[in-house]
Amino acid sequence: MTGPVAVSDLLAATPGWAERAGSAGLDATDVAQFLAEAERLAADLTPLGDRADREGCRLEAGRVRTPEGYPETYARLGADGWIAPDIAPELGGLGLPLALHAAMTLPLEAAAAPFLMAAAASRAGAHLLSQTAPDLAGTWAPRLASGDWAATICMSEPDAGSDAGRIRTRATRDGEGWRIEGTKCWISFGDQDMTARIGHLLLARTGPMEQGTRGLSLFLVPDRDEAGARAPITVGRIEEKLGLHGSPTCTLAFAGAPAALIGEEGWGVPLLFHMIERMRLQVGVQGAGIARRAATLARGYAEERRQGGDPAAPPVPIVRHPDVRRQLTALDAGASVLTALVLELGVLLEGSEEDRALAAFLLPLAKTFGGEGASAGADGAIQVLGGAGYTSEWPAERLLRDARILTIYEGTTGMQAQDLTLRRIRKDEGRTAALLDARARAEIAGCGDERAASAATEVLDRFAKLVRDSMKAEGERLLLSADGMLRAAWVAVESWLACRMIGLGEDAATQARFLLHNAPARMALAEAQASLPPDTVA
Amino acid sequence: MTGPVAVSDLLAATPGWAERAGSAGLDATDVAQFLAEAERLAADLTPLGDRADREGCRLEAGRVRTPEGYPETYARLGADGWIAPDIAPELGGLGLPLALHAAMTLPLEAAAAPFLMAAAASRAGAHLLSQTAPDLAGTWAPRLASGDWAATICMSEPDAGSDAGRIRTRATRDGEGWRIEGTKCWISFGDQDMTARIGHLLLARTGPMEQGTRGLSLFLVPDRDEAGARAPITVGRIEEKLGLHGSPTCTLAFAGAPAALIGEEGWGVPLLFHMIERMRLQVGVQGAGIARRAATLARGYAEERRQGGDPAAPPVPIVRHPDVRRQLTALDAGASVLTALVLELGVLLEGSEEDRALAAFLLPLAKTFGGEGASAGADGAIQVLGGAGYTSEWPAERLLRDARILTIYEGTTGMQAQDLTLRRIRKDEGRTAALLDARARAEIAGCGDERAASAATEVLDRFAKLVRDSMKAEGERLLLSADGMLRAAWVAVESWLACRMIGLGEDAATQARFLLHNAPARMALAEAQASLPPDTVA
Repeated sequence: MTGPVAVSDLLAATPGWAERAGSAGLDATDVAQFLAEAERLAADLTPLGDRADREGCRLEAGRVRTPEGYPETYARLGADGWIAPDIAPELGGLGLPLALHAAMTLPLEAAAAPFLMAAAASRAGAHLLSQTAPDLAGTWAPRLASGDWAATICMSEPDAGSDAGRIRTRATRDGEGWRIEGTKCWISFGDQDMTARIGHLLLARTGPMEQGTRGLSLFLVPDRDEAGARAPITVGRIEEKLGLHGSPTCTLAFAGAPAALIGEEGWGVPLLFHMIERMRLQVGVQGAGIARRAATLARGYAEERRQGGDPAAPPVPIVRHPDVRRQLTALDAGASVLTALVLELGVLLEGSEEDRALAAFLLPLAKTFGGEGASAGADGAIQVLGGAGYTSEWPAERLLRDARILTIYEGTTGMQAQDLTLRRIRKDEGRTAALLDARARAEIAGCGDERAASAATEVLDRFAKLVRDSMKAEGERLLLSADGMLRAAWVAVESWLACRMIGLGEDAATQARFLLHNAPARMALAEAQASLPPDTVA
Repeated sequence: MTGPVAVSDLLAATPGWAERAGSAGLDATDVAQFLAEAERLAADLTPLGDRADREGCRLEAGRVRTPEGYPETYARLGADGWIAPDIAPELGGLGLPLALHAAMTLPLEAAAAPFLMAAAASRAGAHLLSQTAPDLAGTWAPRLASGDWAATICMSEPDAGSDAGRIRTRATRDGEGWRIEGTKCWISFGDQDMTARIGHLLLARTGPMEQGTRGLSLFLVPDRDEAGARAPITVGRIEEKLGLHGSPTCTLAFAGAPAALIGEEGWGVPLLFHMIERMRLQVGVQGAGIARRAATLARGYAEERRQGGDPAAPPVPIVRHPDVRRQLTALDAGASVLTALVLELGVLLEGSEEDRALAAFLLPLAKTFGGEGASAGADGAIQVLGGAGYTSEWPAERLLRDARILTIYEGTTGMQAQDLTLRRIRKDEGRTAALLDARARAEIAGCGDERAASAATEVLDRFAKLVRDSMKAEGERLLLSADGMLRAAWVAVESWLACRMIGLGEDAATQARFLLHNAPARMALAEAQASLPPDTVA
């Protein structure tokens, strides 16, 4: 039996994981128990995810009604410690390492990613408050972790999406506190009927428009006061979307809602980026989880469905056809390497300063290729299932619809490519790229497979050259190169992580060989994409 | 202003088109009028396509109810000659060349591909009957063309999709005629309320199971007799699908329905393949049409939507950002080259024996990359639109849903890859590949752009070598190479057709350069995909 490489194997193989586990006082049995519990919970969440997709969310008398079962299930998640298990015990969490959180949420995201988005925002909010506003954290974090209250993140506005500097929502002083006026859009779970209170973490302008992002501050804006009286916040509408039907995407109008300042005035964007790191990692986890489920679904179908073979004999399971096996291997390999990446990131984000610099380099990759990998995985599963995959009788089509948002929210691929190329490579003068190169080569050298090591080394050599060349590009050429640079970095990282898979048994090694066989050619394509002459673009 | 290259320019540049137009007595003004009329009709069909997606089709008292407006619009299509304009005037058509039909239906497919599927099957049916059963054609073809009656194609069964040899539906003699017993699935417009009569073109078994496809014969099975009495055919259900909501996909049970044999017993599959050529070309047209609409939509949005730029100045239209221009050029170029391919095929399919051999080589490419190009186009449009693209307020998400079926129906990508590799390359001993090579090189040599010609020539050289190498592959290696061969052939054909675009103005030349810049690297990747060692696949 094959399939995506087991999460526990990939976690155990992640450098630094043993140390994280040790610091948290977890032995292998504890980890195995957490992962097994996550699989059980995922099985329970699967019918909820299916039903939520059909039922959707609706606006009734100005309030959002979530699908049947949401309030009870959310309460249970909170009671069982699943909402924010990686925050400190004194704030209501379990103090679990981030990498273990990523590992545990993989199957949950696969089962019900839209539902889980409520938990993700609340967890990110608990983190943010715990790091920036101890007084608010004392009140809010335990209630966010327990599921009694929830948090949202309110950044976008109708005229300010990727461009936060254009945010117009205003915060004005009102005695000790502040009041918020303005409209925010694309707010996941901007309203819901699952928790007693919702705290909106909101970027608003305290300085003049000309200050751009430096005039923005971060606020906590509760939807009601502690006595339960509603603040002047109205839900304009719920978006009708391709997917994520189980996650209400709201437009919210704030008409003087009372707010508490978080941190200092003018520091809204840097503070928020604190939490955005975890949100972007979580997009990678969503993507890896969806890709894992798609691969598993396709293989299960291919083992049962019979077509073709010798016409005189009964039809054979389609998994026996070489082209189907090729498709399934591609799905498995893609899901496995994405899993390896999010686990690596989980470890790095809680590591040394050097680790964190590397994490900042890898985050745009996990975000982007988590998204593209989820779409490719769902797309590939539909192809294996054929006509059946195009119908709602199988979840592949829903996975495709849900996956499509991943390269858009939390920063589009264009923004990720700029982040990597301009900040993580150019501004950084290639230091983190060199660190990645050194760590990857050390691991590749020890992988014990010469053909794999040789392909991965070729890819790293070419990426190093591309990074050097990129130091010379300027202006339009530099901006046109960003998408190609992002893709090249991914081929390099994928090749490194594929070498990690070599030691994890024969099926994992086959997947690694599959990825590495094409890697130099994919790097050549990324090089071409990173060197588009201006006369090729209209 | 840029965008996909104008259909009229690409048609005029297609070798052999002038001759086809001349034989049909069409001058440039006639052609321009037909294309302009198609654009007008497409504008009328757009709201129908949008509404049909929302409304869908439903089963009421055992009969299919199509979306509001379908019956009237179908009647109008028929009355105005749009259903089968390429069949002979004496059978109810206009005798238009196939390439012009493809050109005219591009905007129609973009507007309402699901609705058009009723016309596509009826047109294919009229062709098939006219070539194989003159007596039936005399009765049916004019009524199919006029929209009074419709045709469907009934091949698949629950246990026989790609594997026609397993078809179980039986035909038994009944006096002069035949009777059909069995269940067919995936029948587009298997029932509807638009026409007085439906003729099912159906594959059924007249010989024993052991004969495989050689035991299959083709039948015309009317849903009612000429007096209007219904045959024993029941609609089991309509599939719930990701997209194509405006096209009812039915399961039909035949319980002794009267049928007329078409052609000779045992010749069902070869006869049907006659019509499948046109159906596969039409999938390419659907794909090119969807890709054109997606590219146009994305560009229109990018010209209006303002974000970013100097923070002290008003935001700029996002079309000014280099990475957005890159995305838009990719969308335009992809749509243009697909258009060039379907027009080329339209000309070849009505040409010499040599032309038709080349067409058979190109058909799996138009089918596959029409499908993949439509998905990539819709996906790319969603990415340019960002969050807006993920909502139902814009048609991009619908285009993505509709496009997803194209690489599945009318033969999956796996089947197309086998067709190309085993029949069009191996069994053919590379003759048609050599013909393609010669024609492509002749055109490339005259394209007047040295850089383009050099890239295209490199690609052709590498493809020629791949074809030679492929003659030696056997068994599993050969089957594993098929998908890569298909992709390599596409890079070669795309490079050839890109050179054709060089002469069609500066925007077209930019798109051609965009395609050719990456072409050698894409060929390198396809080579790697065509040479997967067996130990890379689980």
